[in-house]
Amino acid sequence: MIRVGIVGYGYWGPNLARVAAEIDDCVVAAIADGSRPALARAAKRHPASRLYDDWRDLVKAPDVDAVIIATPVHTHYGIALSALQAGKHVLLEKPMTETAEQAERLIAEAVRRNLTLMVDHTFVYTGEVRKIKEIVSSGQAGEIFYYESTRINLGKFQRDVNVIWDLAVHDLAILDYILGEPAIAVSASGAGHIVGSPENLAHVTVFFAGGTIAHLNVNWLAPVKVRQTYIAGSRQMIVYDDLQTSEKVKVYDRGVTSDASQEDIYQRHVGYRIGDMWSPAIPITEALATELTHFVECVTASKRPITCGVNGLSVVRMLECASLSMGQRGHPIDIQHLRVAS
Amino acid sequence: MIRVGIVGYGYWGPNLARVAAEIDDCVVAAIADGSRPALARAAKRHPASRLYDDWRDLVKAPDVDAVIIATPVHTHYGIALSALQAGKHVLLEKPMTETAEQAERLIAEAVRRNLTLMVDHTFVYTGEVRKIKEIVSSGQAGEIFYYESTRINLGKFQRDVNVIWDLAVHDLAILDYILGEPAIAVSASGAGHIVGSPENLAHVTVFFAGGTIAHLNVNWLAPVKVRQTYIAGSRQMIVYDDLQTSEKVKVYDRGVTSDASQEDIYQRHVGYRIGDMWSPAIPITEALATELTHFVECVTASKRPITCGVNGLSVVRMLECASLSMGQRGHPIDIQHLRVAS
Amino acid sequence: MIRVGIVGYGYWGPNLARVAAEIDDCVVAAIADGSRPALARAAKRHPASRLYDDWRDLVKAPDVDAVIIATPVHTHYGIALSALQAGKHVLLEKPMTETAEQAERLIAEAVRRNLTLMVDHTFVYTGEVRKIKEIVSSGQAGEIFYYESTRINLGKFQRDVNVIWDLAVHDLAILDYILGEPAIAVSASGAGHIVGSPENLAHVTVFFAGGTIAHLNVNWLAPVKVRQTYIAGSRQMIVYDDLQTSEKVKVYDRGVTSDASQEDIYQRHVGYRIGDMWSPAIPITEALATELTHFVECVTASKRPITCGVNGLSVVRMLECASLSMGQRGHPIDIQHLRVAS
Amino acid sequence: MIRVGIVGYGYWGPNLARVAAEIDDCVVAAIADGSRPALARAAKRHPASRLYDDWRDLVKAPDVDAVIIATPVHTHYGIALSALQAGKHVLLEKPMTETAEQAERLIAEAVRRNLTLMVDHTFVYTGEVRKIKEIVSSGQAGEIFYYESTRINLGKFQRDVNVIWDLAVHDLAILDYILGEPAIAVSASGAGHIVGSPENLAHVTVFFAGGTIAHLNVNWLAPVKVRQTYIAGSRQMIVYDDLQTSEKVKVYDRGVTSDASQEDIYQRHVGYRIGDMWSPAIPITEALATELTHFVECVTASKRPITCGVNGLSVVRMLECASLSMGQRGHPIDIQHLRVAS
Repeated sequence: MIRVGIVGYGYWGPNLARVAAEIDDCVVAAIADGSRPALARAAKRHPASRLYDDWRDLVKAPDVDAVIIATPVHTHYGIALSALQAGKHVLLEKPMTETAEQAERLIAEAVRRNLTLMVDHTFVYTGEVRKIKEIVSSGQAGEIFYYESTRINLGKFQRDVNVIWDLAVHDLAILDYILGEPAIAVSASGAGHIVGSPENLAHVTVFFAGGTIAHLNVNWLAPVKVRQTYIAGSRQMIVYDDLQTSEKVKVYDRGVTSDASQEDIYQRHVGYRIGDMWSPAIPITEALATELTHFVECVTASKRPITCGVNGLSVVRMLECASLSMGQRGHPIDIQHLRVAS
Repeated sequence: MIRVGIVGYGYWGPNLARVAAEIDDCVVAAIADGSRPALARAAKRHPASRLYDDWRDLVKAPDVDAVIIATPVHTHYGIALSALQAGKHVLLEKPMTETAEQAERLIAEAVRRNLTLMVDHTFVYTGEVRKIKEIVSSGQAGEIFYYESTRINLGKFQRDVNVIWDLAVHDLAILDYILGEPAIAVSASGAGHIVGSPENLAHVTVFFAGGTIAHLNVNWLAPVKVRQTYIAGSRQMIVYDDLQTSEKVKVYDRGVTSDASQEDIYQRHVGYRIGDMWSPAIPITEALATELTHFVECVTASKRPITCGVNGLSVVRMLECASLSMGQRGHPIDIQHLRVAS
Repeated sequence: MIRVGIVGYGYWGPNLARVAAEIDDCVVAAIADGSRPALARAAKRHPASRLYDDWRDLVKAPDVDAVIIATPVHTHYGIALSALQAGKHVLLEKPMTETAEQAERLIAEAVRRNLTLMVDHTFVYTGEVRKIKEIVSSGQAGEIFYYESTRINLGKFQRDVNVIWDLAVHDLAILDYILGEPAIAVSASGAGHIVGSPENLAHVTVFFAGGTIAHLNVNWLAPVKVRQTYIAGSRQMIVYDDLQTSEKVKVYDRGVTSDASQEDIYQRHVGYRIGDMWSPAIPITEALATELTHFVECVTASKRPITCGVNGLSVVRMLECASLSMGQRGHPIDIQHLRVAS
Repeated sequence: MIRVGIVGYGYWGPNLARVAAEIDDCVVAAIADGSRPALARAAKRHPASRLYDDWRDLVKAPDVDAVIIATPVHTHYGIALSALQAGKHVLLEKPMTETAEQAERLIAEAVRRNLTLMVDHTFVYTGEVRKIKEIVSSGQAGEIFYYESTRINLGKFQRDVNVIWDLAVHDLAILDYILGEPAIAVSASGAGHIVGSPENLAHVTVFFAGGTIAHLNVNWLAPVKVRQTYIAGSRQMIVYDDLQTSEKVKVYDRGVTSDASQEDIYQRHVGYRIGDMWSPAIPITEALATELTHFVECVTASKRPITCGVNGLSVVRMLECASLSMGQRGHPIDIQHLRVAS
């Protein structure tokens, strides 16, 4: 039985608490939040959990084995470090930290103490993203040419982070999982339309070592909500539309063929292959339940999580580069420039 | 009665010929194409039109008042210049020319001879784009924040031009018409996935003098066909989906409100305005018929076309800058740098 | 403060309990269910509520003011009658009862004792159906010609009732609310494809006194889920698609015009009016919360509910006739034939 | 080379003429229409065809091998009979005739003279319907439970036939082709909302010998255009949406399973099978070209057409019964009652 403490009972914390309470081998021992109304709501839904108005007390509690942190990103590093130093396993909300350097320090601390450090890249635990990973990894889609994503809606404007840290983070986590290879450069441009708010619209291009190009279109000021991703391989193309109520993933047996035998490339003929479309049945599961069950297993069996600190770091590196590039009107930033000496 | 000669009877020429033949006050006097099978098809459908295998003969024919040019872009300048020098009015397929310099010379030649010079920016003549222009010009949508367009499909790979010149040209023509203000800079990135073919995927960002940002996503290697545009104003937002069979234009009374009275911008509250959606009825018309009727009127009454040479030039300038930027991984290119001395 | 007791903690009961617990002026005093695992789940989520394994005990409890009944339909009459006789207000799950006669007896009992008797016609409390009612009642849509609904999906096959009692009941409740006039006849046909299960596919036509015709297509064995309703008036037509994530209600300014001045009807010209489409913004609310708040208000202020026993009776009458007609291959059944003497 | 004469150059005739002119081994020798403007349009588009203002002259012309009839349905019998008596092969627009008796006489006449008699059931020649036929015939979908079709739009109100003869005829032709078995009974109900016009809304149920039930929802007074068909088999279900621009046919590996081993049917458990969806690639072809090519082949090789007179008769029988039933508020009509003695 893993006894978890949840820090932060604002927007996402209640979901984590609700699901954690329903997981086998897991109990919500404690909840901490600095806001009195938040604590009152926590008391109503989790009468058996101990409540703290200061996370420092929760982190020190001897009957807490693992800490789940769902607070604003600028507080992640401090709370997570304290929790690890107190010998607790940690599950951190995404983005993992404000800087790659902070992420690296947390990883080092967890390794030193042999503790589980996991990042809440929720989409990685959906049936849809897992099915896409399976298709890409099997090679059936061929070489992956590009990943194009549109993730737009009206709201929710954030005060402390721009739209890249809020929305593009999901695609970067998915890319990190599906491609499993390092990004080498990032270019981003964006705009802010509300005085006093960070950029609400951005276009991010990520270049991967294997040749894949990713483009992310994120926007808080869009007329409609869209969650649509196109992944094109040399043999198959995938459409992933997360707002569909069914058939969210469609695989198209489509592409182009090029007559490479022709010596004169101007004479080469580009043909089109239009085959069947196939939409795999994907069991309906709650990603958060899958994820928290995985966290409990990793803690119990000392396994490395699918979305461990290193994956969180990889995403934070891309986010940092994207913000930097956006400040330079799209000037591409090399990822290795940010690596700290190990 | 305007007697037109059509140069080029390949992909688009037959449409121009068919529609021109049905326009009042217009007759298709002649058709020229260097391909024998193309001429045979022209003969079958337009038995009353004279046929030429060399456009030079058509351009010189005394019973041709106006020349419509639907040939590959690299031939536009030569044919159009000859036609103007022979005293013929000219309607040029888009993109107008390969370079801004060529476009400027054609404009000068037409002005000198008092001839009509029009560019076939077809979308400008659709009911949908005209309705959007009306909404934007009336001010009801407020200040235009951005224009975001996705124009993707599988094929048709071109050999001589990249995907920007083939697909983004439509959005640039629409932008030129709707905003009616100059672009100041362009940034573009792209990739080619077929050896020996130009770039088949590109992202183009255009910065306009009035603050509007446009982003165009164009792709010949996409699993599905998409023609979708979002235009966001400070008061209303427009969705234009050209693949819908009805309600192609939807106007959303949506946006954000900012409490500017708060001195501390971090305390300002961003609110969301979610009002009704409205889809104006748009009469079903064939854009090409509207356009050719307009051309005949302009020739007859010596009127300046809605899509005249200057508009064609404006689009070519953006295309040139986009290609230049794409060669420099997105480095933004200032538009005025390309202006030639007048 | 109204103290409610909930009878039945199977599929719908937990939703009623969850929402009732969050309503102001309402407390879930007791929950009854004959199933031990159901009671265990109730205990976990509602630790402060008293639990009964026999509804007879709950109904008699002195600290219960109102009873909410969410049990199989064949038990509704017995439980509701006992509750009314014990002086409790009653909210009954739909369909209200198995027969119109039972419904009439419950109404009489509630009237005699001056108790609130309400039926859980949930859709009547959605923002969408209320907006449609408002449009129809205002007269802006004109005379209502027809109501056509498709309510199909794969599953959930019921054992005790056919698909009409399970799915068409929603449309009948909506029709009762929107039209506010009596149905005069019903014709239905259907088929069962699984041995030992009731009809899983049915087509129901309802004729209303004012001339409106309703047609309901319900099906448990459909490849996809559809929830789509077309309502056509002489001036406007409404499309209500409950599976859309936004713009669920669209109002089309469309119709036909007939040149009635022509004496010879064969010479009369039918014209088409194609005007704008408009989708009203509808606040996102939980129908069940609106409904339970209304129930508490009705109990407290002795108000007549919007979906009172008489509305429940009206729906049960149509259901009875539909089942009768389905057994006679669509022979139309007059509604008044079922009326019992008053 | 087959020389065809086309009778009727109104709505559909121009399409038949255009496509026939492009078919190999086929020439449009003559066109007849009583309307002077129609003949003028025919002259412009088919300058090489002879024109007649009286179909009787065309039917007698010695250089016409086959007559294609695209006139109002009440004229079909007379024109087709004359053509057959003049020794011409006949392709008749759908519905074949006004009555089954007329259809039987035409079939007899064609058989006696060994002439091709074909009916223009266009949908049978689409790639989509052929693919569905292939799936159903192969048995992979299992036993066909039902066919449900919605074919609605605003307009085009007809003066001489009701909506069943105008729209349901398409589904009846598709059913005749796909199932290849006789209908045994038809029930229909409908309503007319425009004084002086026939019924504009109808629901038609057709019972087939093999147990399949078909339901057709047809409507000229609908807010939106819908062309959607669901076909459910015991093993697979098919969705055919003719308004999609791609993936018009989708095959769902879905259904229910019933535990038949349980003796007590009330204890039997209905399970759900939710498998993959698959959308076969269907080559884009023009159905009319496929159909006219088939007609020319049948005439040339004395082959029996896929949609011969017997198929036309089968559809007319269902139409007659549907109209009869609609006049009796849905009273089911047995098909064999209409059979004439052979």
